Amino acid sequence: MKKILITGVMGFVSRHLIDHLSATEECYEITGLCRHPGKIDVDNKKIKLNLVATDLNDREKILPLLDKVRPEQVIHLASESSVAHSWHTPVESFQNNTNIFLNLVESVRNLNFPCRILSIGSSEEYGVVDASNIPISENTPFNPVSPYAVARVSQELLSKIYVNGYGMDIVMTRSFNHIGPGQKDDFVVSSFAKQIMNIRKGKASVLEVGNIDIVRDFLDVRDVVKAYMLLLEKGKSGEMYNVCSGAGYSLKEVLDKMMLIADVDFGYHINKELIRPADNPVIIGSNKKIKEECGWQPLISLSGSLEDILAYWDKEGGGSA
Amino acid sequence: MKKILITGVMGFVSRHLIDHLSATEECYEITGLCRHPGKIDVDNKKIKLNLVATDLNDREKILPLLDKVRPEQVIHLASESSVAHSWHTPVESFQNNTNIFLNLVESVRNLNFPCRILSIGSSEEYGVVDASNIPISENTPFNPVSPYAVARVSQELLSKIYVNGYGMDIVMTRSFNHIGPGQKDDFVVSSFAKQIMNIRKGKASVLEVGNIDIVRDFLDVRDVVKAYMLLLEKGKSGEMYNVCSGAGYSLKEVLDKMMLIADVDFGYHINKELIRPADNPVIIGSNKKIKEECGWQPLISLSGSLEDILAYWDKEGGGSA
Repeated sequence: MKKILITGVMGFVSRHLIDHLSATEECYEITGLCRHPGKIDVDNKKIKLNLVATDLNDREKILPLLDKVRPEQVIHLASESSVAHSWHTPVESFQNNTNIFLNLVESVRNLNFPCRILSIGSSEEYGVVDASNIPISENTPFNPVSPYAVARVSQELLSKIYVNGYGMDIVMTRSFNHIGPGQKDDFVVSSFAKQIMNIRKGKASVLEVGNIDIVRDFLDVRDVVKAYMLLLEKGKSGEMYNVCSGAGYSLKEVLDKMMLIADVDFGYHINKELIRPADNPVIIGSNKKIKEECGWQPLISLSGSLEDILAYWDKEGGGSA
Repeated sequence: MKKILITGVMGFVSRHLIDHLSATEECYEITGLCRHPGKIDVDNKKIKLNLVATDLNDREKILPLLDKVRPEQVIHLASESSVAHSWHTPVESFQNNTNIFLNLVESVRNLNFPCRILSIGSSEEYGVVDASNIPISENTPFNPVSPYAVARVSQELLSKIYVNGYGMDIVMTRSFNHIGPGQKDDFVVSSFAKQIMNIRKGKASVLEVGNIDIVRDFLDVRDVVKAYMLLLEKGKSGEMYNVCSGAGYSLKEVLDKMMLIADVDFGYHINKELIRPADNPVIIGSNKKIKEECGWQPLISLSGSLEDILAYWDKEGGGSA
């Protein structure tokens, strides 16, 4: 049985990660950390899941917990990952990205047991990138332009210190926008899907959008979690890997695709409050490194992903998720 | 009367800053923040100094304090600034550099009063620099190789977000090694001076050193504080400035100069525990930018500085400072 610790276990990515682990041959003993007590049903005898409610900001609780569990692998998904929120509450964004990560790795260092950690970073770290650097490779210098992006860069720089200075085993990602069924409507594609379904059902009348000219690299969360497990298996310690589709779409194109899938056609209202103080016009990543070194390949197309997201919101109804 | 807030007011740099302010024409109303209650004697009617003991980690206390004071300028000197300590306590180093700075700027942002902030950074941010980039200009990409250096890079990246995203007024430094009378013996030159004086007085027998081949750019603290006041006056918001002498000396050269000044000659013992996990072989800065934009000029020579430091430790005796 492989012992894995997953932080942010109640989150969107974690739910899909557990589904993925359930579908593999391996047996897993998973300790899942969450902020508030919760419940996850896993109907699979190969997976033993133990949920623990704790605050990663509280290092005095994290250390004895890690000492008890001593996982072989840590997948650190806990994050305050909204760029928009980070502009409103930059301190909380920083603490719930950088500081919680630091508490985690410092605890593992103090306990000094063998453990491979996957540190999740973000494409936001690249910031505004010159057109000549698209698609963005891992060698592109970072240029963070939001509080969230700074928090992720700080986390990555700390990871390198823990690898090079303390000899720890950490693999890093720069994950591009993920999408998929179950994502909160704080995130743009989920927000579009929810609004489209609400309008179609007559629960809302106006589709509100921010800046829809920006181009992003969207990857289905089910391809993301496969990448994460491959990185834990085959990634190099101290190295960072883009996790992305390699293709870029403007939010307008995504919106048009969704309208087509949902078989609706209506206009939208640009809400200036949804436009961020600083934003990156185009982000498209290169996934050459992870493909070559880990044999990863994205399998779900954008349209396939959007279909599933719309179906999710159709089923969820107009409630907030 | 100019209203200034100084954090880390009980520290080495602050003491010299207050001496410098006392010697200028201007009248100052200074609020000095310190961790523990303390006392600073200022025998000058142009300076009104109010000390407040508070913990900058506690944002709930910082906000009402800043609201009451509403300083025109903030000089943020509070820092856990030892690279060596940062390897032992990386979390504390990060919190007492990056997080305290974030609490401070976020409080000023929330209160939304006009205020210019001087954010102190470090040459350690540059990390290991290729010989072709010496002397290091502000355009050299950073490459932090210690927990302390990462904390300072994070602080600088946050500063840029507060300037470019929120429109705040922050000038940044990358300050190189400062030396001068009154510096704690956690810092290498002070440690050498204290040890030399102790041996000369028969209180110790062995001079213990770490890696003395490393080359650093040493600047007298009295030149540093002049640079800081000029940066507040003439520096550009969102820009960072090297504060350095422009000359490099190996620790061995510094040690030899000190022996010559102290008129002693003895060997030393290399203590491997004093050698850091990762270190930068050569750091020499370019001070072109601050000279050209602010008209600053360092006035105290290395030998002059070392003389004063040795005289300080001669007077202080063998007690810990």
